Amino acid sequence: MSKKEEVLNPFKGLRDFPSEIEILRKNIFQKIERIFQRYGFDPIETPIVEKWEVLKGKYSEDVEDKLIWRFKLPYSEKEFGLRYDLTVPLARFYSRFKPKLPFKRYQIGRVFRYEEPQKGRYREFWQCDFDILGSKSFLADVEILNVVIDVFKEFNFKDFLIKINDRNLLAFIFEKKIGIEKEKIIKVYRIIDKLDKIGKENVLKELERELNKKQLNEIEKIIDISEMQNEEIFIELEKINSKELSEYIENLKNIIDFVKEKDKIKIDLSLVRGLDYYTSTIFEAIVKKPRIGSLAGGGRYDNLISKFINQNVPAVGGSIGVERLIDAGIELGLFNLNEKTYCKVGVIFTKEVDIKKVLEIVNRLRENDINTFMYFTAFKNIVEGIKELDKRGIKYAIIVGSREIAENKFTLQNLKTRERYTLSIEEIINKLKS
Amino acid sequence: MSKKEEVLNPFKGLRDFPSEIEILRKNIFQKIERIFQRYGFDPIETPIVEKWEVLKGKYSEDVEDKLIWRFKLPYSEKEFGLRYDLTVPLARFYSRFKPKLPFKRYQIGRVFRYEEPQKGRYREFWQCDFDILGSKSFLADVEILNVVIDVFKEFNFKDFLIKINDRNLLAFIFEKKIGIEKEKIIKVYRIIDKLDKIGKENVLKELERELNKKQLNEIEKIIDISEMQNEEIFIELEKINSKELSEYIENLKNIIDFVKEKDKIKIDLSLVRGLDYYTSTIFEAIVKKPRIGSLAGGGRYDNLISKFINQNVPAVGGSIGVERLIDAGIELGLFNLNEKTYCKVGVIFTKEVDIKKVLEIVNRLRENDINTFMYFTAFKNIVEGIKELDKRGIKYAIIVGSREIAENKFTLQNLKTRERYTLSIEEIINKLKS
Repeated sequence: MSKKEEVLNPFKGLRDFPSEIEILRKNIFQKIERIFQRYGFDPIETPIVEKWEVLKGKYSEDVEDKLIWRFKLPYSEKEFGLRYDLTVPLARFYSRFKPKLPFKRYQIGRVFRYEEPQKGRYREFWQCDFDILGSKSFLADVEILNVVIDVFKEFNFKDFLIKINDRNLLAFIFEKKIGIEKEKIIKVYRIIDKLDKIGKENVLKELERELNKKQLNEIEKIIDISEMQNEEIFIELEKINSKELSEYIENLKNIIDFVKEKDKIKIDLSLVRGLDYYTSTIFEAIVKKPRIGSLAGGGRYDNLISKFINQNVPAVGGSIGVERLIDAGIELGLFNLNEKTYCKVGVIFTKEVDIKKVLEIVNRLRENDINTFMYFTAFKNIVEGIKELDKRGIKYAIIVGSREIAENKFTLQNLKTRERYTLSIEEIINKLKS
Repeated sequence: MSKKEEVLNPFKGLRDFPSEIEILRKNIFQKIERIFQRYGFDPIETPIVEKWEVLKGKYSEDVEDKLIWRFKLPYSEKEFGLRYDLTVPLARFYSRFKPKLPFKRYQIGRVFRYEEPQKGRYREFWQCDFDILGSKSFLADVEILNVVIDVFKEFNFKDFLIKINDRNLLAFIFEKKIGIEKEKIIKVYRIIDKLDKIGKENVLKELERELNKKQLNEIEKIIDISEMQNEEIFIELEKINSKELSEYIENLKNIIDFVKEKDKIKIDLSLVRGLDYYTSTIFEAIVKKPRIGSLAGGGRYDNLISKFINQNVPAVGGSIGVERLIDAGIELGLFNLNEKTYCKVGVIFTKEVDIKKVLEIVNRLRENDINTFMYFTAFKNIVEGIKELDKRGIKYAIIVGSREIAENKFTLQNLKTRERYTLSIEEIINKLKS
């Protein structure tokens, strides 16, 4: 690639979307948005650029030091960051406006992470977030999970599963019960988090360096329990017989009991999730095929807002990993890129026709809400014009010649079926609208 | 404001949009988008962040040195800029993908300008762009203007006017005919550009320092001619009797002759427009009230793409200044912020009710595409619950008590009219869907 060509490509991890991809994406975003609305979520918007102070201290050190698009301008000393997610901006937004609780908002938009790009991972990508602020009730968790279930069902994903855990349960098991020291725990969680990717054997091997034999055995047991059915997991956990633990079990039991489709929820005692701000329930949604990582995730973050204002506002939310959802859906044949244009009909005309007459027809169609493409020059050969429209993915052609103008009847051709009709403009409008 | 509160506000010129504003904005964007689609434009998307090389040399020096959000990251030496408009990214996009011509695309999104914020001017704002690449025909210009006309009509702006000029005509008059020197011309244009804001007297006064008496008289005459009707302007211009000029006149005549509403188009020989890349037709749309600057603008830029690739692609486009359109529309009472939520119905229940039954009802409503808000806790006092829903702007309440569950009939209350109905869930669904 020459230097000149290289300039034409966006920076690594950033993307252009040509119409056929953008049309699919818009379609998917719209359907997700409708689900959010059905559940009583309303939209808000926040800037792409946040003050650095807003982002600082909200994520892990790693994120702060390596992943946020952080910068100054030549014109001021102020530091900025491009938003890393939609959750921290939401917490700032709530703290600023203090809307009525419970506050249910959705937001669909770009976020920026300076990660190494790979399949399904970009430096600028879209998130679809939905959150409920101001309710401690497990019913709020249930609502978040129901949205995720509805999204997967909307797009006909059959093989999806939502893995669920509780940060407190995780801490109870690994820190209290297995007794892993505070200094080691983050490292241990990071290794366990790779279970899906590298398998049990390898996780245990990696843990060998950190833990003693007894601890390893207990972790292996936890991993094995995680493989069981939810009911069996509860039975195993109840054997531990701790009042603290029973509270966390109760929470998970309630959620599973009230959710729309129980069999789509699976307890996973080894589910960790990366972000620092989660405090209780956490979840991730996966599909069995293709292996692409989680397609949705979320959880409770009851302490985030108190980093902005002196108020405790419980919060639970989810995020649809729409980039992976799209990639997976295309791979599974659930989505296709066949819709190249929103345009329904193209108007072509021959040289001898008065262009004003053509424009009148085109205006009529558009006024009747029919998406209409008009060529600005006459075609010598009408077949040529039809081919042009077909290549654009436009389904109908209207052919305007001098005879058509004289008779006030025009040829409407379906470019897929090759059917032709001779119709008045009113008839064409009715046909195309139906 | 304390330091802590200040952090909660976005940086100067950036904005949060609470739901009632965001709902209005989405509604407006959607309607504009539908107009673009009717005219056969399809959507594309490009990154917020562009390589600096892409932006460099495409705008004036002023823009490059003072207005672009330009930055480096701590992680690399590469320079970036946040996109300043959607036109230069379009030119890059075309050069990269070379889609079939004529290429008609729309793009609605944020752009960033480091200007001093004032009424209707922000540092992050939304543009709605629509462009036709690959046609020299005046019919392409006509189509762009028709879109602008449709947008104003869609929102019931009565008093709008599209001022139109031609960069070549401008140069012919001011440089060739009046003989203003190359060194002075940009300064002179900048002063003339202020005509609407400061009036003829003040413009002429400011020009006194730059020009001689004869030149001043001729400019005054041009300003006076500009006040005339289009037909009279043409008559005045034709008196000059130049072959070159007649070509530009012909172009404007054609455009006005073919456009949807002739009386909405007004030739303005003093219209300049700032951006460097325009080459021929230029236009700006204004409303008489409120005085807020132009609500749409655009023109031909036949040379921009050749800055990226070795190909001449004629281009014409427009941009809806949606921020000002919204501000003006609110001031004129065309838009209101009355829709606080997309949510149509709220479900409230009393303490003795089995929550699972409530959830069943809520799920039924949502499955039937009815946007439903559910409180997660029981209300001691139903009147309290109804007040809560009303404050949120939700129109209907469904009240679920133990008697309602037993009888399988529920109270649906219209919170505006205070009407109450006792209905089965099926009946409620039918009522709310109609």
